Amino acid sequence: MDRNQLRTVLTQVEQKELSVEQALARMENLPYEDLGFAKVDHHRALRRGFPEVVFGQGKTTEQIVDIVSSLARQSHVLATRLSAEAAAAIREVFPHAQFNKLARTVFVEHADLATKVKATREILVCSAGTADIPVAEEAAVTAEALGNPVQRLYDVGVAGLHRLLDHREGIDKANVLIVVAGMDGVLPTVVSGLVNTPVVAVPTSVGYGASFAGVAPLLTMLNACSPGVVCVNIDNGFGAGYFATLINK
Amino acid sequence: MDRNQLRTVLTQVEQKELSVEQALARMENLPYEDLGFAKVDHHRALRRGFPEVVFGQGKTTEQIVDIVSSLARQSHVLATRLSAEAAAAIREVFPHAQFNKLARTVFVEHADLATKVKATREILVCSAGTADIPVAEEAAVTAEALGNPVQRLYDVGVAGLHRLLDHREGIDKANVLIVVAGMDGVLPTVVSGLVNTPVVAVPTSVGYGASFAGVAPLLTMLNACSPGVVCVNIDNGFGAGYFATLINK
Amino acid sequence: MDRNQLRTVLTQVEQKELSVEQALARMENLPYEDLGFAKVDHHRALRRGFPEVVFGQGKTTEQIVDIVSSLARQSHVLATRLSAEAAAAIREVFPHAQFNKLARTVFVEHADLATKVKATREILVCSAGTADIPVAEEAAVTAEALGNPVQRLYDVGVAGLHRLLDHREGIDKANVLIVVAGMDGVLPTVVSGLVNTPVVAVPTSVGYGASFAGVAPLLTMLNACSPGVVCVNIDNGFGAGYFATLINK
Amino acid sequence: MDRNQLRTVLTQVEQKELSVEQALARMENLPYEDLGFAKVDHHRALRRGFPEVVFGQGKTTEQIVDIVSSLARQSHVLATRLSAEAAAAIREVFPHAQFNKLARTVFVEHADLATKVKATREILVCSAGTADIPVAEEAAVTAEALGNPVQRLYDVGVAGLHRLLDHREGIDKANVLIVVAGMDGVLPTVVSGLVNTPVVAVPTSVGYGASFAGVAPLLTMLNACSPGVVCVNIDNGFGAGYFATLINK
Amino acid sequence: MDRNQLRTVLTQVEQKELSVEQALARMENLPYEDLGFAKVDHHRALRRGFPEVVFGQGKTTEQIVDIVSSLARQSHVLATRLSAEAAAAIREVFPHAQFNKLARTVFVEHADLATKVKATREILVCSAGTADIPVAEEAAVTAEALGNPVQRLYDVGVAGLHRLLDHREGIDKANVLIVVAGMDGVLPTVVSGLVNTPVVAVPTSVGYGASFAGVAPLLTMLNACSPGVVCVNIDNGFGAGYFATLINK
Amino acid sequence: MDRNQLRTVLTQVEQKELSVEQALARMENLPYEDLGFAKVDHHRALRRGFPEVVFGQGKTTEQIVDIVSSLARQSHVLATRLSAEAAAAIREVFPHAQFNKLARTVFVEHADLATKVKATREILVCSAGTADIPVAEEAAVTAEALGNPVQRLYDVGVAGLHRLLDHREGIDKANVLIVVAGMDGVLPTVVSGLVNTPVVAVPTSVGYGASFAGVAPLLTMLNACSPGVVCVNIDNGFGAGYFATLINK
Amino acid sequence: MDRNQLRTVLTQVEQKELSVEQALARMENLPYEDLGFAKVDHHRALRRGFPEVVFGQGKTTEQIVDIVSSLARQSHVLATRLSAEAAAAIREVFPHAQFNKLARTVFVEHADLATKVKATREILVCSAGTADIPVAEEAAVTAEALGNPVQRLYDVGVAGLHRLLDHREGIDKANVLIVVAGMDGVLPTVVSGLVNTPVVAVPTSVGYGASFAGVAPLLTMLNACSPGVVCVNIDNGFGAGYFATLINK
Amino acid sequence: MDRNQLRTVLTQVEQKELSVEQALARMENLPYEDLGFAKVDHHRALRRGFPEVVFGQGKTTEQIVDIVSSLARQSHVLATRLSAEAAAAIREVFPHAQFNKLARTVFVEHADLATKVKATREILVCSAGTADIPVAEEAAVTAEALGNPVQRLYDVGVAGLHRLLDHREGIDKANVLIVVAGMDGVLPTVVSGLVNTPVVAVPTSVGYGASFAGVAPLLTMLNACSPGVVCVNIDNGFGAGYFATLINK
Repeated sequence: MDRNQLRTVLTQVEQKELSVEQALARMENLPYEDLGFAKVDHHRALRRGFPEVVFGQGKTTEQIVDIVSSLARQSHVLATRLSAEAAAAIREVFPHAQFNKLARTVFVEHADLATKVKATREILVCSAGTADIPVAEEAAVTAEALGNPVQRLYDVGVAGLHRLLDHREGIDKANVLIVVAGMDGVLPTVVSGLVNTPVVAVPTSVGYGASFAGVAPLLTMLNACSPGVVCVNIDNGFGAGYFATLINK
Repeated sequence: MDRNQLRTVLTQVEQKELSVEQALARMENLPYEDLGFAKVDHHRALRRGFPEVVFGQGKTTEQIVDIVSSLARQSHVLATRLSAEAAAAIREVFPHAQFNKLARTVFVEHADLATKVKATREILVCSAGTADIPVAEEAAVTAEALGNPVQRLYDVGVAGLHRLLDHREGIDKANVLIVVAGMDGVLPTVVSGLVNTPVVAVPTSVGYGASFAGVAPLLTMLNACSPGVVCVNIDNGFGAGYFATLINK
Repeated sequence: MDRNQLRTVLTQVEQKELSVEQALARMENLPYEDLGFAKVDHHRALRRGFPEVVFGQGKTTEQIVDIVSSLARQSHVLATRLSAEAAAAIREVFPHAQFNKLARTVFVEHADLATKVKATREILVCSAGTADIPVAEEAAVTAEALGNPVQRLYDVGVAGLHRLLDHREGIDKANVLIVVAGMDGVLPTVVSGLVNTPVVAVPTSVGYGASFAGVAPLLTMLNACSPGVVCVNIDNGFGAGYFATLINK
Repeated sequence: MDRNQLRTVLTQVEQKELSVEQALARMENLPYEDLGFAKVDHHRALRRGFPEVVFGQGKTTEQIVDIVSSLARQSHVLATRLSAEAAAAIREVFPHAQFNKLARTVFVEHADLATKVKATREILVCSAGTADIPVAEEAAVTAEALGNPVQRLYDVGVAGLHRLLDHREGIDKANVLIVVAGMDGVLPTVVSGLVNTPVVAVPTSVGYGASFAGVAPLLTMLNACSPGVVCVNIDNGFGAGYFATLINK
Repeated sequence: MDRNQLRTVLTQVEQKELSVEQALARMENLPYEDLGFAKVDHHRALRRGFPEVVFGQGKTTEQIVDIVSSLARQSHVLATRLSAEAAAAIREVFPHAQFNKLARTVFVEHADLATKVKATREILVCSAGTADIPVAEEAAVTAEALGNPVQRLYDVGVAGLHRLLDHREGIDKANVLIVVAGMDGVLPTVVSGLVNTPVVAVPTSVGYGASFAGVAPLLTMLNACSPGVVCVNIDNGFGAGYFATLINK
Repeated sequence: MDRNQLRTVLTQVEQKELSVEQALARMENLPYEDLGFAKVDHHRALRRGFPEVVFGQGKTTEQIVDIVSSLARQSHVLATRLSAEAAAAIREVFPHAQFNKLARTVFVEHADLATKVKATREILVCSAGTADIPVAEEAAVTAEALGNPVQRLYDVGVAGLHRLLDHREGIDKANVLIVVAGMDGVLPTVVSGLVNTPVVAVPTSVGYGASFAGVAPLLTMLNACSPGVVCVNIDNGFGAGYFATLINK
Repeated sequence: MDRNQLRTVLTQVEQKELSVEQALARMENLPYEDLGFAKVDHHRALRRGFPEVVFGQGKTTEQIVDIVSSLARQSHVLATRLSAEAAAAIREVFPHAQFNKLARTVFVEHADLATKVKATREILVCSAGTADIPVAEEAAVTAEALGNPVQRLYDVGVAGLHRLLDHREGIDKANVLIVVAGMDGVLPTVVSGLVNTPVVAVPTSVGYGASFAGVAPLLTMLNACSPGVVCVNIDNGFGAGYFATLINK
Repeated sequence: MDRNQLRTVLTQVEQKELSVEQALARMENLPYEDLGFAKVDHHRALRRGFPEVVFGQGKTTEQIVDIVSSLARQSHVLATRLSAEAAAAIREVFPHAQFNKLARTVFVEHADLATKVKATREILVCSAGTADIPVAEEAAVTAEALGNPVQRLYDVGVAGLHRLLDHREGIDKANVLIVVAGMDGVLPTVVSGLVNTPVVAVPTSVGYGASFAGVAPLLTMLNACSPGVVCVNIDNGFGAGYFATLINK
């Protein structure tokens, strides 16, 4: 409830359009739906500009379908980290939903709504290796769901630097770069050294041994000697896509 | 054997009601039952005020049933961290036992006993997300088994702060708060900043990547910049419910 | 601003005792003082029942004196983690302030105020070793400043278990136990196994090698196999004293 | 050397305005100055839009002065992480340089140059505590040096949530938020839950014990359950100011 | 080949009983059998007093059977960390072999050999909990295979200290104590505080959350504030049984 | 594209043999094949002297077969970390491919090509234990695929030092040593103390408890008190074989 | 108070030689002296066979002198981890005390007492490097103070294996080996592979980089692939000397 | 003592030129000098081809001078990690010794000896930043002392990739590359992607926050996605120089 809404309510009280108790109720009555195991936040779309994204991991298929259904009455819905089973269950309810197998996401568009944010400039999603693609796709799908044009550039790790340099033009054109890498996590530093664009780095758990399930690329990215690089959690493609959207507005 | 019991035995020796050897035996003869693989502690109920709780993890189904059966002859029994198989096995022996599927607990009430502790003030169990509910339920079931009235408030993470603020009244009413959160573990700090009530924080292993199976929320809670927060082990709903009971007496 | 205050303001608006703009101002005008580098929180005493405690570490002597002076106009003030220099500077301004050299604290009592909370039951502060005493004293001084009677029991580590068992009576008498230990951090588990009282465990950075500046005792305490133990941050005597006070009310 | 420059050189070769050897030289002759211990990068200003920032830590005072002097011939220069001695030495050479004692920075403006980037929207730098101010100032000074209007909002940690909520309007007005916090690192999550603006989170090494010199707040920020938060290295105020500038363009 | 054997060979050369080449061969010809994937060490029995123990983990069933068969021709053989399949395969070849299901060991006695070491004093193996028994059994079986009389005392954790104190006499009688504990790993410290006997502590991976698969009890044991405690690797019952044998000779 | 090639292109432009646009194209047209999910690097054979090795982990069987097929048109191909399924799929396409089950590798020789590098001196691959053999084999197969004569010496850990010393001659003969060890990782230090040859140490994830999946041997090798030891990632047999080849040229 | 003493007291009560209250007092009256900051344990000498050793680290000079003085009235006293100042202060009170500068210990012999334990077989203390000597000396001094003949063998690390093998005879003669090593911590494994004697391994914090202040050698020792090795805390020479004494009795 | 020497001794015994006891003595009499605190290894020069290098850290100035003096009688001596005081003390004894202030090394040439190894191909030492130069110099000085021609290329980090690419020719010319980098440790990966030469990577402790004193660049280097990179310990310039020498022979 922001300052303007507060002023309105107060004015209504002053003008006896609302009793004190009605005002109290209104000030406390926020638009979420209580499912018991979840308090579905219809308010967030207003507050933050996008629908709440449903994070599927750790929830039962039943819970996921209930939450998605609740949200879908009012807005677009993106669900991430879905098991095959959960994705299928959503699509049974919403047959038109868009399913991305690699990214493990489902996107349910609300018929009556246009996406709130419609960016005109491009977000470029790069991945260092083939095995990083699922995380990169989570980022790309998220950015697309939130209204951005997205380009993909996969398998351009620095072991073959020419593969990266070859796409210099595409890189230069983008307004925001999402750079996804596991193992040594070197790609965001190198890309950032080439451009004047914000780089959102996503470490992945791809690798073995001393990559420690993503810790090695995370540390590389946090210590990037080229400024202009920020970091999200390991494998957090969604977070990168979301943040890039905030920038790309 | 406390000071008073010791005095009694010594007086009996002085008055020749007990021989020296009888006194020695009594002083050493403590009420536990030796099952070989376990020494079941009937004494704890006396010593600590509650029955020993059976921690199911790492024990075979057979061992669990034997220990529960031994304890159930003298007191109420709570068993936690049960596999589906172990829970079923207990309920075969004790058909009236209360089973909580989410919390993975079984509670066997002793017909002739009232719960020793009967608290009148409420314990409130909050969870930040839907995926934290199993740990929250373990805490709630434990607190109930130990004689406390319990309220539940789930999915009130700070990403939608209004969901939490909306329940301010319920929060203020409680005598102790158990706050369960994974991922960034922020909820206990924020809740504690709102109230004047002790907060027992429970980090969960819910999350991925740099949450390191609960290390991230554990550290957040240990470093809580709002005083009035203490911490138990990751996923230790039982420990939180038990400690809250000690406070709520 | 709680529900009652909100109701009052709304009623005043309804009754035209306050204009809408005045109500807005009042609702936003919270009792803290802005020193630029710090926003001193006079409100907390109301909100949480105690004055804000000034954490000296990382602040300049000048900043500390300014904050203490601001707070001391309205309430008692406790300052912790003080350098010798900062402690001296406070005492120059408040010559009657109580200084505890071991605990590195200064307590400034407000002449016109009684301590809000006055507990009748005792808090017992135990330390495993002599080197843990500074942390134990921080806990004890905090608990005393917040209105609790405090007993101290130092150097009762389990290497000489009889030293502990000898004070069984004092331990049994306390309403809350604060148990401070470095190195292996075993004491809280053992103490908790003897009593039916909540134990607030404080790991200390005392030790060397694989104690990792308090990590070893912290882990021991988090994994305490005896229930009824909760944990605060390493060396956080203040947090333990504060939490014990919340319990002891 | 970008595609357009390359085309120009190639065209000049085609038109015999440049010999092959001259073209080779031009393509290789990049504008940096070799000081032996450092290769000063005059090119970066062109390539990335800002002067290279001199990171003072680990360099001798002599090296710092030489590098700053080299850069100052062509552009504005910002030097960070300066010892008192190094700062004084720069100011001896550049008496008009702006020194920020808290941030440990010196800014040398080039007389003939306007800052390249001139943003119109505001960057807001928040700190959770007083002890976090040096890092916050490094971020603020960097953002100012790079051409942004900057607001500061210090000591608004969530232990006194009203201090933060009180400045809601200022927070809403900003185009980018830099949120600096040590200990539990909770502030960025909470702030991000209130706004629709990108949040660049900076963990600090402020704290003790299980904050592990900034690891605890770093993990909290990486796991932020509210999307819209990205992270830089511990104490990396410069990196946050730089990245915020890239967004704010 | 020790000094005496060397002297013998040299004397034989001096006395022309051996040619130079024969001497070279003898000095290099050590009693092991090369199976390609393994060099079976028949020499160790001579060198160290016991047969080589076959560590089953990470070897194929076929490799294990081949190694055991090779060793069994010359000495007793103990195989540890066996899968059910590998244990069965050994017992098919050696039907009289002794199988311990809990400890996951098989012991093959050589018909013609008495165990080399025959200790007369007792080794006592204690476990803190029921779930620690497999590791404790590995220790006990090893010590028995190497010729020691062994007593077992299981489930005597300090949460019920009287269960431990009750067996004081048995503890005092032992010549060496092996104390096995997971979770907080407190038992060895407490036991060591009661006796004047060497304590070999074995941390186990029993526990959850911040026990970090045995790291917590390992650190507790390394930091034991009671001297007289040494430590082996997590879950290394074999190592404890072997070392206790070296002491008990 | 190296300096000479650049000079050629520039000369062709000067001589109008190439238009500017053709030159641009040529300078950007590097020999890799874009499969969408992967950019297959035919260039690397030229640039680095060997074919790109296909790292199978994290790629789908389909992706692996496509990449191998693309590469096999121009050079020898080595694929590592293959699932049984992926190995079978490659061999269906390339029936003559050499499959090493232990090493989990497939090698596809190009009919028309001799291996580029043909070393004459030997690489010796040692393993400490039987369980380390898969990693050792990955190293050996890689070195062989890249044109080196390879000797193997397995199960020569220092628990039976004579097994190692017995092969002194073979060790002394090698030009490079690859030493593979898990658990305590002691072997490379000891071997390096005996010879004057570079030792490439490979820690393995073989072990349990405090070996932390290869961290313990990794640290041992990084801290080797005998100089002449370098380290690759845990279980990285391929990397060791590749590096040894670079030395052995 | 052991079983026999308890029997005596009970018999005295039975025979009216003691009143109940006197018996209670005697059972509780244990021989330690309460200095306020420390409870000096005169009982330990009886209980464990040696005087309590005073650990100087973390105690003030004044506290150390008071504790040593209290203990010295009844037994020999060993003080370890002494600052130069604390060592000097003890020697002022006890001019005959033996000071070991490298080990940072002082030993005060009680005029009227012979050392209780007098071992006849030798303890050998080895160090890998010159920088490990202070820890090795702490072990040696402790073992000597507790009545053992001690041999020293320093700087015999495996980088020059012959330095170690040269002292084979001395190694074989010892009854217990204490092996001290930093950096890679390889020495105990190698030594243990040569003998049939228990090896107490002491990791030291000597090293840099990835030795992590003793973590690397600690892990090496815990994972020692040669059985017969146990471990104490990093730099814990005292603990090794004490444990070796328990074995050497 | 190698096989040939052994044969000689044995033949002398056979021919009665040596008695058995003389042979024993000779076989045991190895060329090192026992200084008590150190066993100086004159043998290593023979065994490994270079003099023992004296590692100064953790040794007293007196010990260092004694060891250097002992070695200098027979060979060249390199001393590393010297304090200013230790370096001065050596130079007092050996006024002609070469001192490198940045590298903290002293090199004492033996008048009568040529360096044993004389390489003809170049070793190139690169550093990412100015602050990495001390470690790079330690590597360079070591390689020079061991007889290699060395080139230096400092401050070529990837934040300004053109600085690196500009020196392509020098990089291509070298036979071995030593690449030194702190912070994100990206340089070795990028360099290795450009060449076909072995890269010895040296992580440095340069950096702050999440670089964890060199752990971040160490992990980056261990996970290098470009093969042909091996790693030494953090700040171990000596180890890199030594290993590069072994390759460069």
